[in-house]
This record gives sequence, C-alpha cells and structure tokens, in this order.
Amino acid sequence: MIKLYYAPHTCALASHIALEDAGAKYETVRLNFAKEEQRKPEYLGINPKGRAPAMVTERGILTETPAILAFIAQSFPKARLAPLEDPFLFAEVQAFNSYLCSTVHVAHAHRMRGYRWADDPAAIAAMQRKVPESVAACFQLIEDKMFKGPWVMGETYTICDPYLFTIAQWMEQDSVDPSRFPKVKAHRERMAERPTVKKALAEELA
Amino acid sequence: MIKLYYAPHTCALASHIALEDAGAKYETVRLNFAKEEQRKPEYLGINPKGRAPAMVTERGILTETPAILAFIAQSFPKARLAPLEDPFLFAEVQAFNSYLCSTVHVAHAHRMRGYRWADDPAAIAAMQRKVPESVAACFQLIEDKMFKGPWVMGETYTICDPYLFTIAQWMEQDSVDPSRFPKVKAHRERMAERPTVKKALAEELA
Repeated sequence: MIKLYYAPHTCALASHIALEDAGAKYETVRLNFAKEEQRKPEYLGINPKGRAPAMVTERGILTETPAILAFIAQSFPKARLAPLEDPFLFAEVQAFNSYLCSTVHVAHAHRMRGYRWADDPAAIAAMQRKVPESVAACFQLIEDKMFKGPWVMGETYTICDPYLFTIAQWMEQDSVDPSRFPKVKAHRERMAERPTVKKALAEELA
Repeated sequence: MIKLYYAPHTCALASHIALEDAGAKYETVRLNFAKEEQRKPEYLGINPKGRAPAMVTERGILTETPAILAFIAQSFPKARLAPLEDPFLFAEVQAFNSYLCSTVHVAHAHRMRGYRWADDPAAIAAMQRKVPESVAACFQLIEDKMFKGPWVMGETYTICDPYLFTIAQWMEQDSVDPSRFPKVKAHRERMAERPTVKKALAEELA
C-alpha cells in the first residue's frame, strides 16, 4: 500500500489531496517538523533530502511533488487527473506544477528557510522582507497568464489544482492579500468545498 | 517546426541537447541576456516569465525545463529518452529533474540572481558567499544518493542526463570543485563526448 510521509502546512498536502482524488488506498505518516523528525536518521533513510513529502510505493520511494502528482495521475488513470493521452497537454500540466515547485514555493521558502541560501541573520531578514513582493509577483502571473478557470487547466480538474490550492493557502502568512487575485481566491474557495480536500485537511490538521 | 528560445550558459542547453538526442527537426532563437532581450515585450509575449527556455510547438508554447524534456521524450518515443511505459520509472526521472530545477538550479541562482529574493546589496552579497556551500551540498546528494551510473538512471540514457550535464557545467563558476564529485565529473566528461552535446554546445557558444 502507498504510504505518504507528510507534515502539516507543507506542500505534501497536494499529494495527499491527489491520493484522495485518485481513490487510492494509502496510509499517511505525520512528521513533526518542530521536533525536526525530517532530519533524523530514520527518515533520512527514506528521503535523504530531509524534506516532505516522500511517498513509499511497492516499487520504491518517490519524492518531489510534481513527480509524485504525475505518478498518481498515471497510476490511477480512471480518475482522469491529467491529460495522459496528449503529450502537449500533459506538458502544460507539468509546466504549471514545475513553476509552482521551482519559483512560487521557492519565493515562499525565503520567509522561513532563508538559512538555506545565506548565513548572515541580516541577510535572512532581508529575504523575509521581500517575500510579500516576490510571492505576490508569482500569483499575479498565475492570475493574469496561467490560470484558465474554473480549474487551473480550464474545464477539467487536474493535478495542478491541489498543488495550486496548497501553495495558495500560504498567502496570508506571506503577507499577500488573496483579494488581489480574484481567480486564485475563487479557486481556493472552490477547492475547499471538495470532499477530498476536506478529508485530507481534516486529517492533517487534526 | 519546433522553435527553441535559448540563451547561452542557461538551462536551455538541456532542452537543446534533448532535441538533438530525439532527432527532432527544430530551429533555435538566441536571446541576448546582456541586452535583456528576455524582458522585452516581444519575448514576454512568448514567455511572460521573461526567462529561457521557451519552446514553440505547433500546439502552443511550453516553458519549464522538466516539462519540455518530458514533452520531447513523449513526442519522440523512438528515441527512448525516458521510460514512458512505466509510471514509476518515469516518476523517478521526473523527480530527479524536479530536484535539479527546484533545488540545484535555485541554489546556483543565488550567485547571479539574488535580487529576486532580497533588495539589500549586503544580503545579495551574503547569498553569493553561500553558493559554493549550498551548490556543493546538492552535488554531494546527487553523487551519494541519486546518481546510478554510467547514466543518471543507470544503464539507459534519459532526459536526466542532458539536464545534469547542463547544471554541472556551472560548478566552476559557483566555486565548487568538480573533483569532489567523481561520478558527476565522469558523467560530465562522458556527456561532452556525445555528438549531440557537441553539436548543441557548438551552436550555443558560436
């Protein structure tokens, strides 16, 4: 059975929701980031990167949200979570998720994880100050150029949706006002009504 | 025909090599980053992110290296650039490329693009100072835990190989000694001998 290692309030929520959307049989293991469980030898044996999520499958362990989401979509094709039969449309899905992973999540990470990229406390503080601007710039691009509506890719729900929802949930903590991005805000509200999202969130926040 | 927008010394090289590996018919358009062509309206109409690469296809425009590489592999299946028939192996390929995109490239970007994440010149200088350490940590993980050899995924060449080669080429400029990572170094040399790599590099550096 699939086992998802997650921590609350991390991007692991996207994979958690997608597993629900797929109707997969899975179990979850919660990591306590406050106790730095993600850096302990037991977990580093599962994911040497020391981050969440990691997904244990019968074939082996997967990391990186865009890869896990694509794997879920391909492993549960009946759930139709990605346009698997069309390489161009599939690439559009991958491109959106890659942008979330490599640009939006990274902009956000400069608020709490600046130590990854500088040692000087003043530099880390300077990074934190820019987060509202850099994260907002990402959501402006999503709002203006990427989001099709009502779902990320248009009429059909895909693995882009739980990932956008997950990262969009961090806006307030990043001092970004969601009302500046009405399409993304409406999407967040639309997602929050889905039973699969409610179930994943209820478990993670319990 | 496919049209690849690139700039020399950027991650666009990975897609350029993969197009050669695929035997694709394509043309390239060079962007002059020194003249900031990537931020001019003409290019922003193609890629509103203002970055390279962007790939124009008959179906539309794709961005984000992991998505472009997967698209090339899926569009030219005879070239066997990814394990397309096996969702788990395909996810391993995607996970490796996602790590390069969201962690290794991002660590490197703090040397020249620190302004994305802070305004204070002292903070930007502090980021630059940490690049040798943060980039080396990434390559240590690749060397110790990810790289299978002789190619990234083992016996079979995949779209992970041109991407690792591309980013590994930046080590010296990031003040990281390649000899610390013998597997990655040997891979770089192995890649440099391939005719497709020589052809792409010769064009980009002409």
